[in-house]
This record gives sequence, structure tokens and C-alpha cells, in this order.
Amino acid sequence: MTAFDEATAVTPEGDGCYAIRPDERFAIVSGDGSVGAVNGGVLLATVLRAVLDTSPHPDPVATSAHFLRVPRLDKARVQVTWLKRGKTAATARAALLQDDACVLDTTITTGKLSDPSDDGLSWTGAPPVLPPVQECTGFADFAGATRRTGYAGQVDLRLDPATSGWLRGRPQGVPEMRGYFQLREERLPDAYLLALAVDALPPVIFGIARAGWSPTVELTWHMRAMPAPGLLRLAARARHVSGGWFDEESEVWDSAGRLVAQSRQIARVGRGRGGPVT
Amino acid sequence: MTAFDEATAVTPEGDGCYAIRPDERFAIVSGDGSVGAVNGGVLLATVLRAVLDTSPHPDPVATSAHFLRVPRLDKARVQVTWLKRGKTAATARAALLQDDACVLDTTITTGKLSDPSDDGLSWTGAPPVLPPVQECTGFADFAGATRRTGYAGQVDLRLDPATSGWLRGRPQGVPEMRGYFQLREERLPDAYLLALAVDALPPVIFGIARAGWSPTVELTWHMRAMPAPGLLRLAARARHVSGGWFDEESEVWDSAGRLVAQSRQIARVGRGRGGPVT
Repeated sequence: MTAFDEATAVTPEGDGCYAIRPDERFAIVSGDGSVGAVNGGVLLATVLRAVLDTSPHPDPVATSAHFLRVPRLDKARVQVTWLKRGKTAATARAALLQDDACVLDTTITTGKLSDPSDDGLSWTGAPPVLPPVQECTGFADFAGATRRTGYAGQVDLRLDPATSGWLRGRPQGVPEMRGYFQLREERLPDAYLLALAVDALPPVIFGIARAGWSPTVELTWHMRAMPAPGLLRLAARARHVSGGWFDEESEVWDSAGRLVAQSRQIARVGRGRGGPVT
Repeated sequence: MTAFDEATAVTPEGDGCYAIRPDERFAIVSGDGSVGAVNGGVLLATVLRAVLDTSPHPDPVATSAHFLRVPRLDKARVQVTWLKRGKTAATARAALLQDDACVLDTTITTGKLSDPSDDGLSWTGAPPVLPPVQECTGFADFAGATRRTGYAGQVDLRLDPATSGWLRGRPQGVPEMRGYFQLREERLPDAYLLALAVDALPPVIFGIARAGWSPTVELTWHMRAMPAPGLLRLAARARHVSGGWFDEESEVWDSAGRLVAQSRQIARVGRGRGGPVT
């Protein structure tokens, strides 16, 4: 069992309630060593586990999530309420609660991604272009071994050099990020790992400004296919940065060259000027 | 008071409950004259009205919505529950219910789009390219005056000829739609009209296949700025069509050339082969 599976584990307690615990191993650790919030994707994967536990359909087709509070590294729970259980799709609301305050509010619609009765209509846009992985920049490695703690110590993220200039204080001038992604531990990609992957890149805003870490306010992601084994390719961009808000839309492509997940989030431009946080 | 404002009106009944009524004037009317579902954007605008009634912040920064059932043209209600009322953002869950069944489940985070304490960071991607409006195809007009009922009779949608070939049975081969949008009645654009605009175009899937109307399963939209008076420009595309599902991401630009709203939805490929529905 990987640290990721342990960190996203849920214990059923009846009536749609699941005991969980935000895991320090996936917390964002700042340059000064202070432990911040647990990565949002890990929280999404945790909530998803609770929902899929009683879902009539296997695939999380649409997950929308509003991030309300930063969870403490202490016991918490997920409350799942089914709103509809249809033949094609089922929808549940699932809230991550701590001391009865909502930390993360989600609605998840599940379905079956490969529909045998489908008429076969198929079309996909152009995939992102990345250099070979060996030409990419190891994210945590760059920041030095001492910072390989928390989230950065769990994920193996290799940034496209075209979008990693900010690590050397030279943002490329465009709000884009691209890279390869996997866990450091060996584990096949699945829906839970996609929930992590859709927000695994550094904020796209780092491509245009030296900002602090950017809190996600809302994130919606769509699973489009079960990923093949191997490295995932991530590509993210913003379309509009204004008034302290920015959007970030990302795509996840698998090693077989298929688009397996999409996300869009709206986030606040980070206030701090602490530089890159690993 | 326009038909749109009447159709999206809410009557407070206390405890976060609002009486509403899906309005036939915004129902989708098929080629054979049968009255279908009320346009989803009108339902979104209705729910938004209920939420903004007690919101501490003016702007609906993020709205995520899961469409569960088709509402009848009969009395219904919106139930609003606030999950957080913060200084920067507030989040409410709002459900559109009919006979106690959830028709539309939303979570809406409100905030203030122009933050005076913002550091002024600003960046926007390239706007969509549209021909002059007089070269565009009137949507309802094309289908003939007899079909100017329901939704098509309320909105003035002018399609870019590059994306209107499907109206003549010749889809352009790419899942894209572009056009100009306003109500037929004179009314300044605002947050409510943006909730309609983000899903006002015909399904992008019509650009690659003669499909039936495509039910939206989940739609999230972000308001980015208060729109200037005048025509709105809409541009939508899909990135992936597979297994009976497709995504549609749209942008709304105002007459002043600003990106004012973004959306992404996941929808089912329509099963019918009835051709364009106006």
C-alpha cells in the first residue's frame, strides 16, 4: 500500500459517513520548512474514495469542488449524500468536514465512460507537445534534497524547461505549465491518481509573476478514460488573470497518448512574495 | 421587466427557500413543435438570483451545476444553504427542487471581481475571431418564422458561418461554435445574462455530427468581469468526444473586448437523429 493510498483512505462509519485524516506526507512544505495545507488533489481523491464506495457506476465523470477552509492535520470526516441514482449517471454531494465546518464541498456525478451502446462518435484535439522526459526539470530535485518533504517528496514531477524558468527567477512570460507526472512510489494510475494529477503542476501564474502559493477556490475535473500504465503528461494554462483571480485549465494525457482527464479551476493570486514553494 | 427577468424571478419564502416556476417561454421547442426542457442557462440564472439575494459578495465567481432531472413547467423551489461567509469569498449550496426531487444541484462561490487591494497583475489570452455580425446567420430566422417559439424566440443568436454548416446538413468537421448573443428584448448584460450566455450556443458536437440535442450533465462557469453593454461574443469548442460523452468549453467576451465569463460542461451525445432543434 502506497503513502498515497494510505493518505486517501476512508473508513466507513455508516449513514454515508467516512472517517478520514489529512496526511502530513502530502502537505505543502515551504522553503523555510513550515508545513502548510495538504495538497487539494489528495483531498479530492479522499472524497472520491468515499463516493465510489457506494456508487452504482464506476467512473467519476464530473467532480466539482469548492475549497472553503484549510484542514488541520487531525481527524475529519466525509459525508456522502446521493441525490440521484440513474441508469446512465448518478450524483452525490460529498462534504469534507472538520469540527462540523465544511472544508471542501463537492458534487460528483459518476457514470460509465465506455458505453457499449455508443454510436462510436470520436474526436480529440491536438495533444500537448513536451520534450522527452530526460530533458525535463525534476521539481523537488531542483529545490535541493532538503526540501524533498511533504508533497514534493511524494510526487515525481518533471517540468518542461520552457515552463520552468520561474524556478531560476525568470518566468517565461506566459501563464503555462507542462510536465510529466507520477508518484515516487510505484503505483498504476487510476481515477484517484487523476484527481491528484489535475492539480499537480505548480500554479500557471508562476509563468508570469513571482507570486506566493495560490489557493484554489473552485476546481472541476472530468475523467475521460481510464489511464494506461506509465507517466502522465500534464499541460495547464490560464486564459485570464485579473483583479486578483486567475483561471487554470489543465489536461492529463496518458502514456498511450489519450486525453484521460480535464480540469479547470479558479484561484486567487498568491499574496506572498516568498518565491517558489516546494 | 423582460421575459428573461420574469422567467428567472424568485419569491423568498423564508429559511433560504424561494418559490420559482420554470417558464415555457424558454423551453426548447423541437422541429415538430413539441415543447421540451427549459434551457439550462435560465435555470442557472434562477438559482443564482436566489443565492445573490443573501450573498455577502456581489459577484458569482464560480458556479458548478449538476443537471439531474428535467423540470416540469410547474411550481418548483430553490433551497439555499450557506456553507461559508468569508471576507474574500462566500459559498452556498443551492438546489432546484420539484416535488422534493433535486432537478439541479449547484454550489456557488461569490466574491468581488475587482479587488482594490490587488497587485494589478493582469494577463489575457487571444480573443476569438468572429466575422462582422451582419455576416452571421440568425439562428431562429434560418429555421423559419414558425419555429421562433420558446428559447429560440427569446434569444438573438447569430452564428459564425464557419460554424453554421450543420444548419444546412454540412457540419464543418470540427466541434466548434461561435456567434453573437443578446436577448431579443432590450436588456443590459449582467451576471444573470452571463449564466444564460455560457450555454447559449448550439452543442459543439453539431460541428462534427448530426446528433440529437445533447443533455448537459455538469456545467461549471466562472464570471470574470461585469460585461459592458452590447452584443456578447461566444466561442465554444470540444477537446474530446468519446464513449458517448463530450466536453464543451466556452468563453464569453463583451463588446469592450474583455473576457467576461468562461464555462466548461460535460454532456451526453444526443441519441436522436432529429436534426437541428430550434
